[in-house]
Amino acid sequence: VAAVITLTTDYGTRDPYVGEMKAVILRLNPDARFVDVTHDVAPHDVREGALAVEAMVAVCPAGTVHLAVVDPGVGTSRRGLVVSAGGQFFVGPDNGIFTAVLSLPDRQAFELRDPAYRLPTVTATFHGRDVFGPAAAHLTLGVPPARFGPPIGDPVRLRPATARDVTGGVEGEVLGVDRFGNLITSIDATAVARVSGRGGSVTVRIAGRRMPLVRTYGDLDDGAVGALVGSHGRLEVAVREGSAAARLRAGRGARVRVSRSTKTSTTGSKRRTSS
Amino acid sequence: VAAVITLTTDYGTRDPYVGEMKAVILRLNPDARFVDVTHDVAPHDVREGALAVEAMVAVCPAGTVHLAVVDPGVGTSRRGLVVSAGGQFFVGPDNGIFTAVLSLPDRQAFELRDPAYRLPTVTATFHGRDVFGPAAAHLTLGVPPARFGPPIGDPVRLRPATARDVTGGVEGEVLGVDRFGNLITSIDATAVARVSGRGGSVTVRIAGRRMPLVRTYGDLDDGAVGALVGSHGRLEVAVREGSAAARLRAGRGARVRVSRSTKTSTTGSKRRTSS
Amino acid sequence: VAAVITLTTDYGTRDPYVGEMKAVILRLNPDARFVDVTHDVAPHDVREGALAVEAMVAVCPAGTVHLAVVDPGVGTSRRGLVVSAGGQFFVGPDNGIFTAVLSLPDRQAFELRDPAYRLPTVTATFHGRDVFGPAAAHLTLGVPPARFGPPIGDPVRLRPATARDVTGGVEGEVLGVDRFGNLITSIDATAVARVSGRGGSVTVRIAGRRMPLVRTYGDLDDGAVGALVGSHGRLEVAVREGSAAARLRAGRGARVRVSRSTKTSTTGSKRRTSS
Repeated sequence: VAAVITLTTDYGTRDPYVGEMKAVILRLNPDARFVDVTHDVAPHDVREGALAVEAMVAVCPAGTVHLAVVDPGVGTSRRGLVVSAGGQFFVGPDNGIFTAVLSLPDRQAFELRDPAYRLPTVTATFHGRDVFGPAAAHLTLGVPPARFGPPIGDPVRLRPATARDVTGGVEGEVLGVDRFGNLITSIDATAVARVSGRGGSVTVRIAGRRMPLVRTYGDLDDGAVGALVGSHGRLEVAVREGSAAARLRAGRGARVRVSRSTKTSTTGSKRRTSS
Repeated sequence: VAAVITLTTDYGTRDPYVGEMKAVILRLNPDARFVDVTHDVAPHDVREGALAVEAMVAVCPAGTVHLAVVDPGVGTSRRGLVVSAGGQFFVGPDNGIFTAVLSLPDRQAFELRDPAYRLPTVTATFHGRDVFGPAAAHLTLGVPPARFGPPIGDPVRLRPATARDVTGGVEGEVLGVDRFGNLITSIDATAVARVSGRGGSVTVRIAGRRMPLVRTYGDLDDGAVGALVGSHGRLEVAVREGSAAARLRAGRGARVRVSRSTKTSTTGSKRRTSS
Repeated sequence: VAAVITLTTDYGTRDPYVGEMKAVILRLNPDARFVDVTHDVAPHDVREGALAVEAMVAVCPAGTVHLAVVDPGVGTSRRGLVVSAGGQFFVGPDNGIFTAVLSLPDRQAFELRDPAYRLPTVTATFHGRDVFGPAAAHLTLGVPPARFGPPIGDPVRLRPATARDVTGGVEGEVLGVDRFGNLITSIDATAVARVSGRGGSVTVRIAGRRMPLVRTYGDLDDGAVGALVGSHGRLEVAVREGSAAARLRAGRGARVRVSRSTKTSTTGSKRRTSS
């Protein structure tokens, strides 16, 4: 049965862990198709994994199985999860990695407990291969989520990233840093639009710096810092062909504030005519 | 013909080498399926590649072709190998990378010599693309191993990792360090069981430290060091949500010893009630 | 429709960008097959991406779609390209990344402009997912290149890497450094053959060092520096089981010269009998 399984882990790509997980899946369903989302989630960083899963949900076709294993609690009493939500499926530890979809109205969550859907021998340290991988394969073969175990009413969710209205604007935080050094924040496009109102100009403040809101990286001067609404619908802070994280020495948790500009400054943007 | 080819190399993922190898294979068999095991074997580190292959053999379906190219001797007189063993196939340089399967009772090894199964032009430096890749493709198309060249009776094997019985226990060595900083040792589950006997308690010593044997990472206190039987059936030394390699400043070759505990200490484990 | 799409980007593999791009493609053509060339092009380094594409063109089957996105100008007025050349297809920004094929006699280039072949909503910062990925998918589905937009007569090309004849030899430059630390130069096998003539001996000079031309890495003594014609038909400078880049402290742009040897020195090669 041809079906897409996305893979999000902190296994890295240096060790054979990902390959073993895929081999086990292909033994059960030789037609499964893999989309590697990332295996370079910082070790044990569930929040980073959750962001990757969230990005994938938005673009994947119905029926996609998302296998996400960032699992510091492997082998302990933490539960395994099978979730159906928004026409897609999710398999992994019950530690918040699927927070993005746990509030969807059609969400159904089950504990991954039936030994029929795991390897005959389950090690204490590699449930990606022994438990979650096989469950993902069985989902692609049409096994209904409810078959894996009893329903769960209270799957673990991560504390929502804060983005709260403040006088004259909205305040949020940096959720993560991408490979280019862009700072991805908890402030979404809607909040930015609410602040800017009907076309007004907006200023972004982070790490003691203020910067303009631009449309894309190329609107910035070389090396200038600016903010923009990125491809996941979140406010990002970027440096043109450089790293905002390095330049601002800012990372996850840094506070960021969007407010209506007092004057229509476009400092740092290409529209500036004198330097 | 749909068939799985696993790929283990030291080519890295920054250069197009792996892509070129895959393209050549797909030209011969458009239905070949790839499972990337790792391309981040330390350059020229045959032993590290051999460990990855060993892990894959245990989980791959019959008929899998394992293409492994860590090949410091490329273009010299070192031979190329096609091996059939345990219902799976192996293609790569004859330098010990397939040691794990070379002692299997049904093993058959052949020298990869027939020019019909390589590219028309073979460069001196990239046999993964020009020789081994095409051979792997032909294997998936059903060419029998004996067709690639004459039988080889003495394929190169790596010196076996030592794990020897000592008074009151077993002594071995660290074979490698994984992405999490776990130290993977040459002592297997059977040896550990032999020492612990009928449920007795066991102490592990490495780098001047002694630590308890636990079942999984989560059984350790945060930051505590411990040993456990890992997912490949080998004794591992780990730190909960941390790197044992960094903590113990230990790496490949470090000596490790398992012995019966003189008292039932569980220092460092969660079962400890006072800190 | 089964067809191969090669992927060359600077997206890295830590963030979900590559996964999102693939998911969008699979939604349009569930049978598309991916070959990841590299996602670790240095951020914004179009020239490095162009080298990877060039390597793939030489080995890919007819009909292959090469999707290459190193795109510092994303969201600005830079054009998108669909190219047909040498029986293969190319999709990406018009910034020189396809220079290798833009001079082929049958080359046809079109501006990627028809909104029918992109996502309904196009962000300003992620055209790999929103524009180029979908176009690649439509190409695999049989949409002819001319359908994507008006012909382009002057696609952007990179300045050709210099390799010019000098007295008694040829002079070129280092184009890049691979994972092993090998220095890949702009001097091709033909130029080397022209200098060496009918079997004469040749000396290579780089970074104030002179070295012999050998056939493969294994012809060098351990740790010795040498030059050879590499797997892409270019002169490379290498250290046996070591990094030439580190040893010579040389990188992209370093000058390299090949000249006829005044004496038949083979210093550093295995053929040397005394050390």
